[in-house]
Amino acid sequence: MVSNSLEQDADFMRRAVFLAEKGVGQTSPNPAVGAVIVHDGRVVGEGYHMKCGEPHAERVAIANAKGHGFTQWSEATLYCTLEPCSTAGRTGACSTAILEKGMKRVVYGAQDPNPSHTGKVNELFQKAGIAVMSGILQKECDSLIRGFRKVQETGLPWVILKSAMSLDGKITRPEGEGQWLTSEASRLEVHKLRAEVDAIITGGNTVRKDAPQLTVRLPERSLESRQPRRVILTRDRHSLPIEAEIIQDSKTIIYEKEDLKDVLRDLGSQGVNTVLIEAGGELLGAFCDDKLVDEVVMFYAPLLTGGEAVGVGGVGVKSLDDVMKLKQVHYTQIGDDIKMRGTVEKERGE
Amino acid sequence: MVSNSLEQDADFMRRAVFLAEKGVGQTSPNPAVGAVIVHDGRVVGEGYHMKCGEPHAERVAIANAKGHGFTQWSEATLYCTLEPCSTAGRTGACSTAILEKGMKRVVYGAQDPNPSHTGKVNELFQKAGIAVMSGILQKECDSLIRGFRKVQETGLPWVILKSAMSLDGKITRPEGEGQWLTSEASRLEVHKLRAEVDAIITGGNTVRKDAPQLTVRLPERSLESRQPRRVILTRDRHSLPIEAEIIQDSKTIIYEKEDLKDVLRDLGSQGVNTVLIEAGGELLGAFCDDKLVDEVVMFYAPLLTGGEAVGVGGVGVKSLDDVMKLKQVHYTQIGDDIKMRGTVEKERGE
Repeated sequence: MVSNSLEQDADFMRRAVFLAEKGVGQTSPNPAVGAVIVHDGRVVGEGYHMKCGEPHAERVAIANAKGHGFTQWSEATLYCTLEPCSTAGRTGACSTAILEKGMKRVVYGAQDPNPSHTGKVNELFQKAGIAVMSGILQKECDSLIRGFRKVQETGLPWVILKSAMSLDGKITRPEGEGQWLTSEASRLEVHKLRAEVDAIITGGNTVRKDAPQLTVRLPERSLESRQPRRVILTRDRHSLPIEAEIIQDSKTIIYEKEDLKDVLRDLGSQGVNTVLIEAGGELLGAFCDDKLVDEVVMFYAPLLTGGEAVGVGGVGVKSLDDVMKLKQVHYTQIGDDIKMRGTVEKERGE
Repeated sequence: MVSNSLEQDADFMRRAVFLAEKGVGQTSPNPAVGAVIVHDGRVVGEGYHMKCGEPHAERVAIANAKGHGFTQWSEATLYCTLEPCSTAGRTGACSTAILEKGMKRVVYGAQDPNPSHTGKVNELFQKAGIAVMSGILQKECDSLIRGFRKVQETGLPWVILKSAMSLDGKITRPEGEGQWLTSEASRLEVHKLRAEVDAIITGGNTVRKDAPQLTVRLPERSLESRQPRRVILTRDRHSLPIEAEIIQDSKTIIYEKEDLKDVLRDLGSQGVNTVLIEAGGELLGAFCDDKLVDEVVMFYAPLLTGGEAVGVGGVGVKSLDDVMKLKQVHYTQIGDDIKMRGTVEKERGE
């Protein structure tokens, strides 16, 4: 029995989102996409896009179903977090593969953000007698491609600002003290966050003072997993400690540019869809001042330091209208620390 | 049937704590105390100390039981959050009233913090054949009298530092903008917090800039409820706006003293057991610098401001050892705001 109820569609799409998330941080410049093939109310094949150059999620799912001996394509429904591509890229259009299989129905979540592609498959499939539905779990599916979409639309990657602070908003590591004050568990969360992004930006001061590795170190992560690109913003590259591993790595990108938007645009053109800013208060503040931040993740340790060593500095706002408001704010208690994650509202004086 | 199980004792003591809480903020220089009289497993009388000069909780509970026609005192147990007083104060020793009634058993939570009284009733009651047990719900009962105890032990009131900040630790009201950024619900919490304390301290700058009322405004609060004393710290009292209601109120206390400990000691000697500091970053920071803070309550609005207008300033700590660590940290989400409340650990470099 094939039920087309919205609830069942959402359940299968949730599985596709779950699969897509495995690719987050690994697929750029492509987006993370997941796909599930369902027949008779059961999943018969599934997959996700693993990295650029590898097959798209739809083709992975088809191959997976085939591998299990599945043949009843004309009775199958394909669930895909993103509208299947209608133009042949590196790996051939997915819509072609779906048409070839003569599937019964296609359900997708997010639309292709490229305006010349958006909704193109609908007509293509309908002509071939394939039922099409879109917008299932759209919020979740849109979120999966938020970096990809932003680069397509603006040339700039999605920018996540991260800091670990005291409860009074001071950086939790007094200058010269390398020790972390947030807990082991919070640090694990930072590594998970790094694993989501294509690049991590820091400042020359942080490199000189703290010698951060800025790598993803997670027990469950496979060795072949891609590490985010490491990016250093500095006024003078010769002031950086040449012996530091991060400087010796030829893949590290160093910018002497002053304009942060230029830096982001350049990273976007190099296939970076999402960047994490892990830096001192001045650089974080500068990204805020320039209104370049899309999302904020903060870790708070249960302590106060007083003083002026602010976690987010810069010029700051001059009026309430200019304040960076967050929406979809999630607070998570991690031991005695707290993690806050929210998306920046985009109305403020822009 | 009278069960003496610890669980049942804790249940009745919980009721006594609940009653005591009604008096918090109303009883100084006395502590808030609640009492319950139990016979045959049922509450036959209860009460709490309402304000200084009025009967103590034990006497209120006895009168309440009497009012209901209760007479079987020799089979009754008295639960009291604090050790019954053994010396006649304004209203006669409660131990005398209990002895007169010839009660069967007395259970109390916290010990009298006055070292010359501590545990004195135990002997008194035991001699009279009254069973005594102490330490039931001790943590909760101790917390009820934390201000009272601190004044007894040190001459200084319990100090609660409060601020409402952005997620990057900046005061949420940019200078000259009177509007609050935390939500209506968070503001209600602030009024509840004010209702807990005997005095509210602010700075001359805050009075000049924000003209705060610093009063408790709660819908459920009765008109006779005592308002906390309002205290202003300023370098020059003549710089304060004479037309402001807070200045015109003859009960407002204004200090020109520089030494914060002196100010607190003077308030303690005037019967203030607990103070709330609601002020700008400089004054809050000064209390932190001088290690005078016992508890911290922070409200965070879901926004970032950047810049340097810190919510807690002062000189700040020079090393991690000096950091003000919080324990018993509770986070409560209030709409999109978050409230953090914690007690200061007392080990740091003292």
